[in-house]
Amino acid sequence: MPVATQGSVKTLTSSDLREAGYGLILSNAYHLYLRPGVEIIEKAGGLGEFISWDGLILTDSGGYQVFSMADLRKVSDDGVEFSSHIDGSRHFLTPEAVLDIQFKLKSNIIMPLDQPLAYPASKIDAERALDRTLLWAKRSKEHFLKYYDFENKNRPLLFGIIQGATYKDLRKRSIEELLGIGFDGYAVGGVSVGEPKSLTYEIINYVALNLDRDKPLYVMGMGTPYDILKGVEAGVDMFDCIIPTRHGRTGTAFTWRGKKVVRNARYKDDMLSLDSECDCFVCRNYNTAYIRHLINSSEISGLRLLSFHNIYFYSKLMEKIRVALREGNLGELISKMSVFYKEE
Amino acid sequence: MPVATQGSVKTLTSSDLREAGYGLILSNAYHLYLRPGVEIIEKAGGLGEFISWDGLILTDSGGYQVFSMADLRKVSDDGVEFSSHIDGSRHFLTPEAVLDIQFKLKSNIIMPLDQPLAYPASKIDAERALDRTLLWAKRSKEHFLKYYDFENKNRPLLFGIIQGATYKDLRKRSIEELLGIGFDGYAVGGVSVGEPKSLTYEIINYVALNLDRDKPLYVMGMGTPYDILKGVEAGVDMFDCIIPTRHGRTGTAFTWRGKKVVRNARYKDDMLSLDSECDCFVCRNYNTAYIRHLINSSEISGLRLLSFHNIYFYSKLMEKIRVALREGNLGELISKMSVFYKEE
Repeated sequence: MPVATQGSVKTLTSSDLREAGYGLILSNAYHLYLRPGVEIIEKAGGLGEFISWDGLILTDSGGYQVFSMADLRKVSDDGVEFSSHIDGSRHFLTPEAVLDIQFKLKSNIIMPLDQPLAYPASKIDAERALDRTLLWAKRSKEHFLKYYDFENKNRPLLFGIIQGATYKDLRKRSIEELLGIGFDGYAVGGVSVGEPKSLTYEIINYVALNLDRDKPLYVMGMGTPYDILKGVEAGVDMFDCIIPTRHGRTGTAFTWRGKKVVRNARYKDDMLSLDSECDCFVCRNYNTAYIRHLINSSEISGLRLLSFHNIYFYSKLMEKIRVALREGNLGELISKMSVFYKEE
Repeated sequence: MPVATQGSVKTLTSSDLREAGYGLILSNAYHLYLRPGVEIIEKAGGLGEFISWDGLILTDSGGYQVFSMADLRKVSDDGVEFSSHIDGSRHFLTPEAVLDIQFKLKSNIIMPLDQPLAYPASKIDAERALDRTLLWAKRSKEHFLKYYDFENKNRPLLFGIIQGATYKDLRKRSIEELLGIGFDGYAVGGVSVGEPKSLTYEIINYVALNLDRDKPLYVMGMGTPYDILKGVEAGVDMFDCIIPTRHGRTGTAFTWRGKKVVRNARYKDDMLSLDSECDCFVCRNYNTAYIRHLINSSEISGLRLLSFHNIYFYSKLMEKIRVALREGNLGELISKMSVFYKEE
């Protein structure tokens, strides 16, 4: 999923996303709640209508954002009180309110409020945050059932978020309790928060092995090309990550032969496209020297061309993965890609 | 002409320009000479190839840019010595060198080096700058003839630049001498440099009345919608202006009912398009509240959507003007538009 935190995948439009092959994007309830405000999006007829996106939308609750501002918030079992990073106004959000926001946004996939932790977290902290996350998960499901019959297929989906930091016993308890409550899909939260990669993969593998496999599994906020390949190998179905657009805005292109730092002087007279194996509109029309010139000249169009190329690369990567899964040769694809991307 | 100073119409791509109906854009020899450097563009096969633009290109010499940096340059009849605004390196450009750069860029319309002045300019200064501009015009034509036979139609065009500040006798001498040298078209330089609008229009009218009318007339760097209408009324054929894209980047839309400051709070829940009379892809797909949200959230895509809408508006304005000229009712169009745009 490309990330449209504030209702826009940075530098791109909804038609760019379609052209790149996406049908599902991620947005953020917390950000949209603060700006432009839920009433405005409700008035438009939902987030899809507001941003002119005819595909599906998953909204994150914004728990991660709230808990990233340690000095701005007060948390209790009731919910979380925080100051807006925009105007300093005070807000109080409960698990129920966070769902209500997402109902109003008309999200297709709803994430409940949870309490993620930074790495490293002590076991006591991890346990306390997990208890609260599980309590909120239960309340979220109850609140959801007030509005939607779970048997009715014409409704948004509600995912559960597995926490427990780096502690396997906590992750196990999280899985068991969430399965008991019952969700449409499960997300691994609290990874890619500063821990070593090997530990990330270990947690994901552990969760995937211990989870009911007929529901989608989503890893939140993780996504170098190699991460995605390792995640899929473990059994993960969904990813979101700002990496392709953030790298685009800082002048780096993803190619089938590794990352290309376009700012680098070696590309100053490179009249070839960013990637000879890519057929996106950027690679069909523009040479690397021109894109480098745009980036060096602080031209916005350079950020846009690189961002588009990168999300197209990710879309094609997912396509290759689906083909490999169908043909049973994912291992081959992973070893091929790891030559260029393993070091990350 | 949309302005692609550094080889990019800000926030837009070449396909956007085509979609908006343009076939001719303006770029700047001075800027491209400094970055990325002429050799790189030459290696690509010219500026059109480098930036992936299959339309025509007019390049300004950059005289205006050089003379804007009073403390960075030394000027003599030979040419102008200046420091790069990018890295401080010293450069010396002669009228001949400026043409050579534009030959290498493969510009379709070439502007010679001239010496513009800020407003107000004393008559002595204006006379001295005009003498130099005319000397350089003569040398430019001579240099041009070393490479191209003026009878040969398969060659770039060379325009002459009329200077003379606000002094009619100087403007008249400028016109007479330039006509004597003979150019493919004529440009009015040294307007829109701080003088009152009424004076701008007076100079343009004066030049248009005193000029051989079988050659195109181009007013440099002027272009509110009302300016363009008044210019066409006087007999001007070509304009360039950064206004549509600059206004786009600062959150203002041009509409058929005047300018719309999209940042304004009154648009916060406006679910209509920017302009109900516009059929550009932005107006077909996006509501004003969303574009306002993007601008307020510093999302690049907001700048792009507004910039596109604005250059589309200008393209349609030129289309309306052409129709009005054909049908002999330009006056009607001017009075209609002046209701919304005269105050500028």
